[in-house]
Amino acid sequence: MVDIDELQKKVCLAKEASRKLAYTTTAVKDAALLQIARRLRADNERILVANQLDYADAKASGMSDAMLDRLLLTSERIDGMAKDVETVAALPDPIGEMLDMHTLQNGLQIGKKRVSLGVIAAIYESRPNVTIDIASLCIKSGNAVILRGGKETLRSNQVLAEITQAALREAGVPAAAVQLIENTDRSVVSELLKMRDTIDLVIPRGGEGLIKFVRDNSLIPVVAGGIGVCHTFVDASANLEKAVHIVYNAKVQRPTVCNALDTVLVHKDIAQVFVPAMAQELNKAGVEFHCDGASLPILGKLGGLRLVPAVDADWGKEFLSLALAVKVVDSVDAALEHIACFGSGHTEAILTENYTNAQRFLNEVDAAAVMVNASTRFTDGSQFGLGAELGISTQKMHARGPLGLKEITSYKWIVYGNWQARS
Amino acid sequence: MVDIDELQKKVCLAKEASRKLAYTTTAVKDAALLQIARRLRADNERILVANQLDYADAKASGMSDAMLDRLLLTSERIDGMAKDVETVAALPDPIGEMLDMHTLQNGLQIGKKRVSLGVIAAIYESRPNVTIDIASLCIKSGNAVILRGGKETLRSNQVLAEITQAALREAGVPAAAVQLIENTDRSVVSELLKMRDTIDLVIPRGGEGLIKFVRDNSLIPVVAGGIGVCHTFVDASANLEKAVHIVYNAKVQRPTVCNALDTVLVHKDIAQVFVPAMAQELNKAGVEFHCDGASLPILGKLGGLRLVPAVDADWGKEFLSLALAVKVVDSVDAALEHIACFGSGHTEAILTENYTNAQRFLNEVDAAAVMVNASTRFTDGSQFGLGAELGISTQKMHARGPLGLKEITSYKWIVYGNWQARS
Repeated sequence: MVDIDELQKKVCLAKEASRKLAYTTTAVKDAALLQIARRLRADNERILVANQLDYADAKASGMSDAMLDRLLLTSERIDGMAKDVETVAALPDPIGEMLDMHTLQNGLQIGKKRVSLGVIAAIYESRPNVTIDIASLCIKSGNAVILRGGKETLRSNQVLAEITQAALREAGVPAAAVQLIENTDRSVVSELLKMRDTIDLVIPRGGEGLIKFVRDNSLIPVVAGGIGVCHTFVDASANLEKAVHIVYNAKVQRPTVCNALDTVLVHKDIAQVFVPAMAQELNKAGVEFHCDGASLPILGKLGGLRLVPAVDADWGKEFLSLALAVKVVDSVDAALEHIACFGSGHTEAILTENYTNAQRFLNEVDAAAVMVNASTRFTDGSQFGLGAELGISTQKMHARGPLGLKEITSYKWIVYGNWQARS
Repeated sequence: MVDIDELQKKVCLAKEASRKLAYTTTAVKDAALLQIARRLRADNERILVANQLDYADAKASGMSDAMLDRLLLTSERIDGMAKDVETVAALPDPIGEMLDMHTLQNGLQIGKKRVSLGVIAAIYESRPNVTIDIASLCIKSGNAVILRGGKETLRSNQVLAEITQAALREAGVPAAAVQLIENTDRSVVSELLKMRDTIDLVIPRGGEGLIKFVRDNSLIPVVAGGIGVCHTFVDASANLEKAVHIVYNAKVQRPTVCNALDTVLVHKDIAQVFVPAMAQELNKAGVEFHCDGASLPILGKLGGLRLVPAVDADWGKEFLSLALAVKVVDSVDAALEHIACFGSGHTEAILTENYTNAQRFLNEVDAAAVMVNASTRFTDGSQFGLGAELGISTQKMHARGPLGLKEITSYKWIVYGNWQARS
C-alpha cells in the first residue's frame, strides 16, 4: 500500500529544499559533505548494527553469496564511503559556471549559467554505499534527492539517510534536501514516476528489469544506462600480443561490471593465430568461450578449454561473468555491422595498427565511448577524470557516458540588458 | 486507422539513413540545403497550387482568419523559406566538434566528439514553413527527421517533403532521411511515441494540448516548450519611463508568441505612478488589463481603459493576445514567489536600478532565460545568435531555451589508446 499523500509530501519538501540548495554556496555544501564523512566514521557502530540486521534477513531469505557481499558493510567499507564523500567535497563546484558569455550587437550581454536540475529521484538496488554516493553527488551539484533503495538494505539506508540529514542540518543546509522513501513496494516507484511537477530527473540504477520498468512508466525524464554489451574488434593489423593483453584485461579484470568485455570480434586473417593465443591466456582465469561456427573448430583442436557453441542469444548479451562470445568476421565493415546490431551503446573498442580502420571505427560506431587500442574497462567516471559518477548513461539525450557532477546540471540563459526593446 | 507496418517501415528507413547522414560531410549537407532553397523557388508554382487546395478546404471548414493566415503561402513567403534554408546552410556545422580533448596520466587521450542524435520526430501544427525549417535544421545537424504536420497543410507538406527529398537525392544524401507521415490521425502520433528503438527524440510544436499529449504518451525523450507565461517585475528603483517602453515592447510588439509578456508585477512603492503611465501607453495598442485588487482602483480612476478584474486563472495564463495581467507586489521576495508559483520556466525579467535585486533575480528565478532591464521578446534563437531555432525548450533536461543546431546533437567519448589496460 502506498500512502500517496505522505509520498507527495516528502517530494514537495525536497522540491522546496532544492530551491535553497540551488544557490547555497560551495563552502556550505562542502561543509555539509565533510560532516557526512565525519559522521559516517563516528557512527560506524550504529551503521554496522543496522547493516547486520539487513544482512541476517537477506541471508535467511536465501540471497546468493555474491549479493550478500554487495550488501555487507564493514568498518573498512564505511571508511571508504567517507573517503568518497571527501573526494566529492574536493571536486570543483559545477554550479554557477558561466558559459559562452558574450555581447550581442544590440549591447545585450548574454551567456549560460550552469544551474542545478532541482529534484533527482534515484531508484536503485542493494548496495548501501550507493545511498551515500548519490546523496553526496546531488548535494554538491545543488540538487535535492529522493532515495529509493532496495528493501534488503532498508535499515542500513535509514541510518545512512539520518546521518546525511543530520550533517545537512549541522551545516545549515535544509535537511529535507535528502529524502529516503522507506516504503519499498514497487508501486511507490510507479507513483514517483508520475510526479513530473516536482521531480526533474529519474536515475534508475540496477538490473535490466528495473531500468525497463522505469523507462516504460516514467512521465519524468530518465537518464538510464548501466547495460553494457561491450565489443572489442581485433583487426588484421593488430599487435597480437598486446591485443591478447587488452582482451584479457577487458574480460577478466572485473567481469561483473558494465564496462567488461562481452564479445570479441576477430578479423578472419588473424583468427587462426589470435583466437588460440587469446583463449589460452583467458583460460588461465577460467573464461568460458561461446564460439561461433568459425572459432569453435579452431579452439576445439586445443583441448582443456571451456567451450560452448554460441547461440543467437549470446550476441548482444551482457554476461557479467567470466564468459566471452567469440566471432570471426570478414572485415571491419562486418565488425561495424555486428556492433550496430548488437551493441548497447556503452563502450566499443577496436585493436588495430591500421589508421583508416581506427578512424572509421571512431567515426561510425555509435556508443557512449569508442576506443582504439585500449581496454573497455576504462569507461568510468573516475578513470575519465570526472572524480566520481552517478552511473553511466547509454542514451544520447542530456548526458552520455559517465555521469559526473556537470552531467546532473542544467543551465539558464542570463541576459544583462541596458533597457533594450526588440525592434 | 494506422498501418503500423507502413509506419514502422518509414521510421526504419529514416534510422538507416540517419547512420549515413551522421557522417556526411558539411559540404554535402550544405549542397543538399542549397538544392532545397533552389527547388523551393523553382517549384514555387507547384507549392502554391497545393497550398491553395489546403487553404480552400480550411476556409470551407470554418478556420479562423488568423489560422488561415498562418497556413497561407505566397511567393514572398516561399522565397522567405528558401532564404531561411540558405541561412541554415551558412551556419557552422556542429557535428564533429571535439570538446575537452585532453590526455590522462596513463597516456589515454580522451575527449567528447559532437555527434547527431539520430532520428528526430517533429509533431507540429498548421504552418507549412515549419516543415522546411525543421527539415533543414535536422539535415544540417546530421539527423534524420520524421515530419508529422497537421492535416490542414497536408498537401502543402507533401510537396515540400518531395522537394526536400529530391534535393537530398541530387546532393547524394539518402532521401529517406526526411520522412513525411501522411496519415494525420492522432493515433499515428501514439504509435510513433512508442518507437523508442528507432526514434531518438520527439519535438512537439504547437498548442498546450498537443504538448501534453506527447509528454503523457511518449516512451521517447521529449524536448518540449513553447508555453511561455512570461513575467516582468518592475522594481521600486526602475527608471519608469524606460520601464514603460520595455513593458510596451514585451506585450505589444508581437503578442501572439511565447516570449510575449503575460503578467506585469509592480512594486507597491511605484504602483501609483507606474501603473497609470504604463496603462496609458499600452492602451494605445488596445491592451486589455486584468487587474488585481490593488491595481484596479488605480486604473479605474483614469477612464477609457479596457479593464477586467483579474480572476485566479489569469495568474499563470499565457494570453497570446493583447491582454496583460497586472499585480502590485510588496517586495522583490513577493515577485520571486509569484514567479516561482506561476511561471512556466520560459522567460522572466526584472526592471531595476538596484544591483542586489538584479543579482537576486538572476540567481533565484528558475527559467530558461532570466533578464535584467530587457524585453522578454529577446528569447529567440535568432536574437540569441544561434542562427535559427527548432523551438524553445522550457525543460531543464538536455537543452533549455532556444533550440539551435547544437541543441539537437549529442556527443560520444573518443579514446585514443596506446594499448593501455586498466590496473
